Amino acid sequence: MAKLIQNGTIVTAVDQYQADILIEDGIITLIGRNIVREDAEIIDAAGHYVFPGGIDPHTHLDMPFGGTVTADDFETGTRAAAFGGTTTVIDFCLTNKGVPLSQSVLTWHRKAAGKAVIDYSFHLMIAEITDDVLAELPKMIHEEGITSLKVFMAYKNVFQADDGTLYRTLLEAKRHGALVMVHAENGDVIEYLIKEALEAGHTDPIYHALTRPSLIEGEATGRAAKLTELAGSQLYVVHVTCEEAVQQITAARNKGVDIWGETCPQYLVLDQTYLEMPNFEGAKYVWSPPLRPKFHQEALWTALSKGQLQTLGSDQCSFNFVGQKDLGLDDFSKIPNGGPCIEDRFSILYSEGVAKGRITLNQFVDIVSTRSAKLFGLFPKKGTIAIGCDADIVIFDPHIHRIISADTHHMHVDYNPFEGLEIKGEPVTVLSRGEFVIRDKQFAGTPGTGQFIKRGTYQAASADLKLLKEAAVDKGAAHV
Amino acid sequence: MAKLIQNGTIVTAVDQYQADILIEDGIITLIGRNIVREDAEIIDAAGHYVFPGGIDPHTHLDMPFGGTVTADDFETGTRAAAFGGTTTVIDFCLTNKGVPLSQSVLTWHRKAAGKAVIDYSFHLMIAEITDDVLAELPKMIHEEGITSLKVFMAYKNVFQADDGTLYRTLLEAKRHGALVMVHAENGDVIEYLIKEALEAGHTDPIYHALTRPSLIEGEATGRAAKLTELAGSQLYVVHVTCEEAVQQITAARNKGVDIWGETCPQYLVLDQTYLEMPNFEGAKYVWSPPLRPKFHQEALWTALSKGQLQTLGSDQCSFNFVGQKDLGLDDFSKIPNGGPCIEDRFSILYSEGVAKGRITLNQFVDIVSTRSAKLFGLFPKKGTIAIGCDADIVIFDPHIHRIISADTHHMHVDYNPFEGLEIKGEPVTVLSRGEFVIRDKQFAGTPGTGQFIKRGTYQAASADLKLLKEAAVDKGAAHV
Amino acid sequence: MAKLIQNGTIVTAVDQYQADILIEDGIITLIGRNIVREDAEIIDAAGHYVFPGGIDPHTHLDMPFGGTVTADDFETGTRAAAFGGTTTVIDFCLTNKGVPLSQSVLTWHRKAAGKAVIDYSFHLMIAEITDDVLAELPKMIHEEGITSLKVFMAYKNVFQADDGTLYRTLLEAKRHGALVMVHAENGDVIEYLIKEALEAGHTDPIYHALTRPSLIEGEATGRAAKLTELAGSQLYVVHVTCEEAVQQITAARNKGVDIWGETCPQYLVLDQTYLEMPNFEGAKYVWSPPLRPKFHQEALWTALSKGQLQTLGSDQCSFNFVGQKDLGLDDFSKIPNGGPCIEDRFSILYSEGVAKGRITLNQFVDIVSTRSAKLFGLFPKKGTIAIGCDADIVIFDPHIHRIISADTHHMHVDYNPFEGLEIKGEPVTVLSRGEFVIRDKQFAGTPGTGQFIKRGTYQAASADLKLLKEAAVDKGAAHV
Amino acid sequence: MAKLIQNGTIVTAVDQYQADILIEDGIITLIGRNIVREDAEIIDAAGHYVFPGGIDPHTHLDMPFGGTVTADDFETGTRAAAFGGTTTVIDFCLTNKGVPLSQSVLTWHRKAAGKAVIDYSFHLMIAEITDDVLAELPKMIHEEGITSLKVFMAYKNVFQADDGTLYRTLLEAKRHGALVMVHAENGDVIEYLIKEALEAGHTDPIYHALTRPSLIEGEATGRAAKLTELAGSQLYVVHVTCEEAVQQITAARNKGVDIWGETCPQYLVLDQTYLEMPNFEGAKYVWSPPLRPKFHQEALWTALSKGQLQTLGSDQCSFNFVGQKDLGLDDFSKIPNGGPCIEDRFSILYSEGVAKGRITLNQFVDIVSTRSAKLFGLFPKKGTIAIGCDADIVIFDPHIHRIISADTHHMHVDYNPFEGLEIKGEPVTVLSRGEFVIRDKQFAGTPGTGQFIKRGTYQAASADLKLLKEAAVDKGAAHV
Repeated sequence: MAKLIQNGTIVTAVDQYQADILIEDGIITLIGRNIVREDAEIIDAAGHYVFPGGIDPHTHLDMPFGGTVTADDFETGTRAAAFGGTTTVIDFCLTNKGVPLSQSVLTWHRKAAGKAVIDYSFHLMIAEITDDVLAELPKMIHEEGITSLKVFMAYKNVFQADDGTLYRTLLEAKRHGALVMVHAENGDVIEYLIKEALEAGHTDPIYHALTRPSLIEGEATGRAAKLTELAGSQLYVVHVTCEEAVQQITAARNKGVDIWGETCPQYLVLDQTYLEMPNFEGAKYVWSPPLRPKFHQEALWTALSKGQLQTLGSDQCSFNFVGQKDLGLDDFSKIPNGGPCIEDRFSILYSEGVAKGRITLNQFVDIVSTRSAKLFGLFPKKGTIAIGCDADIVIFDPHIHRIISADTHHMHVDYNPFEGLEIKGEPVTVLSRGEFVIRDKQFAGTPGTGQFIKRGTYQAASADLKLLKEAAVDKGAAHV
Repeated sequence: MAKLIQNGTIVTAVDQYQADILIEDGIITLIGRNIVREDAEIIDAAGHYVFPGGIDPHTHLDMPFGGTVTADDFETGTRAAAFGGTTTVIDFCLTNKGVPLSQSVLTWHRKAAGKAVIDYSFHLMIAEITDDVLAELPKMIHEEGITSLKVFMAYKNVFQADDGTLYRTLLEAKRHGALVMVHAENGDVIEYLIKEALEAGHTDPIYHALTRPSLIEGEATGRAAKLTELAGSQLYVVHVTCEEAVQQITAARNKGVDIWGETCPQYLVLDQTYLEMPNFEGAKYVWSPPLRPKFHQEALWTALSKGQLQTLGSDQCSFNFVGQKDLGLDDFSKIPNGGPCIEDRFSILYSEGVAKGRITLNQFVDIVSTRSAKLFGLFPKKGTIAIGCDADIVIFDPHIHRIISADTHHMHVDYNPFEGLEIKGEPVTVLSRGEFVIRDKQFAGTPGTGQFIKRGTYQAASADLKLLKEAAVDKGAAHV
Repeated sequence: MAKLIQNGTIVTAVDQYQADILIEDGIITLIGRNIVREDAEIIDAAGHYVFPGGIDPHTHLDMPFGGTVTADDFETGTRAAAFGGTTTVIDFCLTNKGVPLSQSVLTWHRKAAGKAVIDYSFHLMIAEITDDVLAELPKMIHEEGITSLKVFMAYKNVFQADDGTLYRTLLEAKRHGALVMVHAENGDVIEYLIKEALEAGHTDPIYHALTRPSLIEGEATGRAAKLTELAGSQLYVVHVTCEEAVQQITAARNKGVDIWGETCPQYLVLDQTYLEMPNFEGAKYVWSPPLRPKFHQEALWTALSKGQLQTLGSDQCSFNFVGQKDLGLDDFSKIPNGGPCIEDRFSILYSEGVAKGRITLNQFVDIVSTRSAKLFGLFPKKGTIAIGCDADIVIFDPHIHRIISADTHHMHVDYNPFEGLEIKGEPVTVLSRGEFVIRDKQFAGTPGTGQFIKRGTYQAASADLKLLKEAAVDKGAAHV
Repeated sequence: MAKLIQNGTIVTAVDQYQADILIEDGIITLIGRNIVREDAEIIDAAGHYVFPGGIDPHTHLDMPFGGTVTADDFETGTRAAAFGGTTTVIDFCLTNKGVPLSQSVLTWHRKAAGKAVIDYSFHLMIAEITDDVLAELPKMIHEEGITSLKVFMAYKNVFQADDGTLYRTLLEAKRHGALVMVHAENGDVIEYLIKEALEAGHTDPIYHALTRPSLIEGEATGRAAKLTELAGSQLYVVHVTCEEAVQQITAARNKGVDIWGETCPQYLVLDQTYLEMPNFEGAKYVWSPPLRPKFHQEALWTALSKGQLQTLGSDQCSFNFVGQKDLGLDDFSKIPNGGPCIEDRFSILYSEGVAKGRITLNQFVDIVSTRSAKLFGLFPKKGTIAIGCDADIVIFDPHIHRIISADTHHMHVDYNPFEGLEIKGEPVTVLSRGEFVIRDKQFAGTPGTGQFIKRGTYQAASADLKLLKEAAVDKGAAHV
């Protein structure tokens, strides 16, 4: 049945106007004034913004880490995402050395199957470059539609790859049209700093931050940028937290390097002092890279505002305070890294960014949705409101004031790191390919309706180049 | 009569999709698939791009300079602009010390009245800050809709203002919501360099370039940026030509300064060697700032690609080679500064930028139209394709190959500085508020149908912030 | 009569060793271990440093300013300098437009004649470049030995020169081997900021600082550096106070520009909060450029330590608190600019720099003496301890702890801005050309014995290039 | 027997003057005019410079590499050094994982014993940080007087240490007063680039340069600088070859990091095109890092001139063209890395630096001798001409013109990479602790007279801080 969204204020990464939207077969087919369609279900959006659904480019659902597993899986995670205005997530598929990539991907497909309530896709971790990996990569990219490769420069002896592996991944990505993603911290140095801290008897959560200084996030970011420049490839730096890293990205961009940067709500809103909270509560704020001294926040906001950082990921990776975070009660290095953010990413950016005048409404849409769609090959099916797009739509009431709390959130975890934060604005209704997932703030979706999206390859330069003559050839993103 | 553009590929600064566009009363009212409207005139755009009309933020039509007057007036200039895909121009209204601003504006209105074939608006030159100027400025901005103020840091003893005047203009602009524009070159030093060159007997056109080194364009740009930072105001640097200036703008942006940069086709395509052409032909290439050594072109393209420069102006300021440029036959400093570019701005950016892979299609639209609309208060009536916008539309055939030549151009001037340049793509049909100005490459407009646009005030931060609750109050740009 | 300094620790800009020094006819003729010379007067320096006498490159003695005259003249000023370990001062000879340079220099000679107790020389202010000035300059430089030219970028309508004048001065300096000095602040902007502050009723001393922000000292410094680069000339930036200016100097040096920077003790030790002292006491701390927020101090120390700033001037310009500073009681802009520092420059650098580990002993000597000697053509007669040098020597006890106070200082002014500062180290005995000026902390000099020094021309690159074959030709600095 | 050097022009890192020098027991005891000492041997230095002997901070004598051993050992190497004006060398003592440091040092002592004709010392390579290494290090530094530690960031699987090892070495160096030296190239990336080149059949010497791009020398330099900043330690970057590395060092210095940079004559004079010489002659120019495109030379000279680089090492590491370099005839990666330069380092810097006006005479002395003496704990016994110093002296004729050639050089290797280079100036007589090593251009030394020098610990900040009260405690460098 067709749906007709009436009287909303449509906002894209560039436009803002009042119009009605007609949705047929899950696709946007008509936008205009006073559309009349008698057989359509009417959704009244008067006084509300109509945004493209949020795209979260960075989640870890149902992921094993340090002997435990994240508290949220693809069902609870995607449901919470939908409540928060996100209609697509791209989750990180971990791999292991010596195990075929296809097997890891299959594992991840099984985690999601029958659970997701919104669409999803996978990034693929690269732990090593072997002949087997080289042989499998083209299939992963071109057939499986997994067009982004993640390399860790940290987590020594766990995930960390050496610079040769990073460089070769960049070369392969260039060859096959994939985007390389890096976790940029110097793992070698961190390993020693942790060892030294523990030997000195420093076990509290704050030492998680003190053993991962921003200087070496900057170092690793600059290193990855230079390898990208050398390879003539493309890079996406995940979870940028600090001024040093922003400077390295900016310097590379100014030289013409094809590099992009993501930050996360926690780095924009929280700071290092949270790790000093008593009674081990600091453990709730253990992310890697860690929260930083407060002055870094301004550098991040300026970078978002001026386009030096382009996207916002949640880095969703939830662990319960009781029963999981407390694995590190006597040793900060054993605290599972990560926190729950998938639900609040969208609203925090609106509230702290748009409502406080730091970014514009159009920038908000670009950062929270459009740019990720373009960079990761989801565009134009996802990431905007235009004719032919999937009707992944958020109807958002900007006038609501509310307080974030674990008491009311929908994530399956026992705390919320943004507890008490006043938020302006809330998604009221959320559609995924034209179907209600959230309706008048109530869950209306069904586990398993979310589809895996095979993504298009990386588009050189700025990820939205598509000449007319080529349009027929490149079908862009497609559903399975 | 309604018009229906069918089957085109609509491209905005963010989107690209196939759809039909319905135009009623000069306004876009419906966009969608297979629109049926029997009473509408059909325009077939199959195989063509449908772009928002170009906005040229920098023209000098019917302008006196150095004892002569530009070869193109508002009739020939706007007609040529339309042929080239531009549907709005913002012309510089010169002022004189001691003369009321309103009188200068009136003079400019008279130049345009009855002549323009597309819509237009004015920037206002600020030569001095006196009590009279302070008294008139609010009226100019809020009532006349002239929301951008131009200050010259060069042309000593002619247009040049001192730093105190620039600083005060920045403060007034901040107070009243205007955008300050600067011509950034160090006029004091240039004055001496010209004097020294002439005393040494150097009279050829190449000395125009040699007496205006890029180093002092960079200097003046940095100076203006720092005064803007100090004032907490906003700045738009016109005709950026060189790496030094780009670096200054970038550095300021990275500190959070609200600064923007424009370049021009001539600086992207031509270089300093053109000034050495024999038989005084170098005079055809006398712009200020001058053409630069070729390596600067890459810096400009990178800056456009990475968003450090945001717009493209023509700096249209045409003088005939015979009868005008030759005023400087014996003295390069007497060559009228400027050249014809209003017609080719749009196509050169497409051909050299998009077709050569330096920028994306979306960036093209942003640079050639949308960003100027936003910065100068024309948005959302102008600068995009969305419901409610003026139907200023260009139907563009990207497959055409053609050669720029004075023999075929429509500007009223006896040479074309891009003579012989191969161009890919051409506007086929151009609409202004829904009426044909160019139809199948033939002129279909009428002098005098172009309207003066009162522009909205400058929107802080990135010129597109407009919260929902404020939308009702701020009506945005309006027609006279 | 010969003198023999025994058992001291001799320190130059590079060496440190124990030895005796023999002085004959005011010249150092022998350095070695256990020198025996029966007819020589013995000076015991055991346990003390033996430094070359300090060179103060920046003083204003007997200078008219704002309707009054500095409290110290060449007698009281040079005597205080000697107490403080300084044996040469270079004073600024002011000039007036339309008045022959030679006449201004004559005026300055008359101020010094019969008064100075140590050697001195003059810098020459350039207010304008006219044919008369151009005609006189070579004589001033080559015959009068005045080889440094000062240009003001601030003090609008008083001392300020425009950029064309600065540029031409740089060209003339390059031609004739002089060093250009700039006071780098944007006078146009400051003029308006002062006017605006006064109109708002802000008359307190703190507004002196608030109307001269560091941003525009940085701006003017960068501007001067770029004009120097363009001219291929050489520049010395006086009284650098802030991070922005240091960055501009450093950036220019890294491009190979021949630029040097001086700071002053007040900027290393005091900060902007002093201007907020009650009862108008803030007026004691009115220098231009003003004292800055405290974090700038670290930037200055780092720059001295890493060689980005090279010298320390006192900017001696004393005015009594009662009777002079109070001219600005109701209007901060009428407070005479400047303060007394000629006596404490040397000891503050030792105490705050060397004793606190920020710079080395050798760097101390370089900054306080040697580098100025080289830059301003006094070397090798002045500025070091080596065979053939003038015996301008300071015997310094590094173990003394003392407190700076107006009660005990020797300047002819009623306050000391460093009142209460604890100092480690004190000059005990000071020789000028082998004669006692200070002997065991008592004045032993005679007004009028100080000689005017005709200085050598500026040596390209780093001011100490002198090839062997050229040594015979260039006699270096000579006494009148 | 005492010696008396008469009538020379003595030049130190700061001074230049004419005087005689008296040497007793190998020590400088008197400097002055017209010294009379009847029992002394007279050395006439009229018309010549008298310099402190050169200090070469970077040699590899009698070193095994890639299955062969350097062509020069401590006898031929130090003799050639002496001919070239160098009186002290610091050689790199290689170590192996699992082997006690003391054993490696003993090996190196045996290489030098009975052979060296001038004084020498050792740097110590750190391959790993184990408990054994940690236990031995203090002894090496404080008892053996080996106060500099070398870490390789390149030569994967041979010398390369990981970042954790570098970081820990920096911490140990800080703790014990040693200076860390790095070979800064990204070995992981280079390993892959070499592999890729060979797989593509690229075996010629030019591929040595093409597989070690300057970008990753810059990367590694910046990385090492940031680890140094984090550790609060001190770093010396050996053989800096390129603009990128200079920029990283400069940026770190400007932040106050205690970092120093060395370049080598080959990078100042030769360029990458030499590797393209036919008939495998390119192999003669295989150094790591490699020779660079010519424009880098200007960056290096500017850095030396402005103090961003401070020293010049020879990186002496000679292999015969026939019989050694040709190990890589079919595979560039098997060409032994290095070349002969120990003899020409001093003269090339004089000729290309001083005689061509790029640096001053004083800077020459600082770069070629004094700064290395200070950084590596040889000062004040070595590195200057002052009372109490070792009489390591070079009498240099600046007027000689000569041509570098393997036919006339004194190194034990069959080619000279500077063959044909015109040189201005030549050492005529060289003294080591007062004894002739070279006398009127003839060898006058004796193998085995060169002594091992136990060096002093690293002096914080700028390596020449030594307060008076501490002078008695710190004896500085001493002879064994």
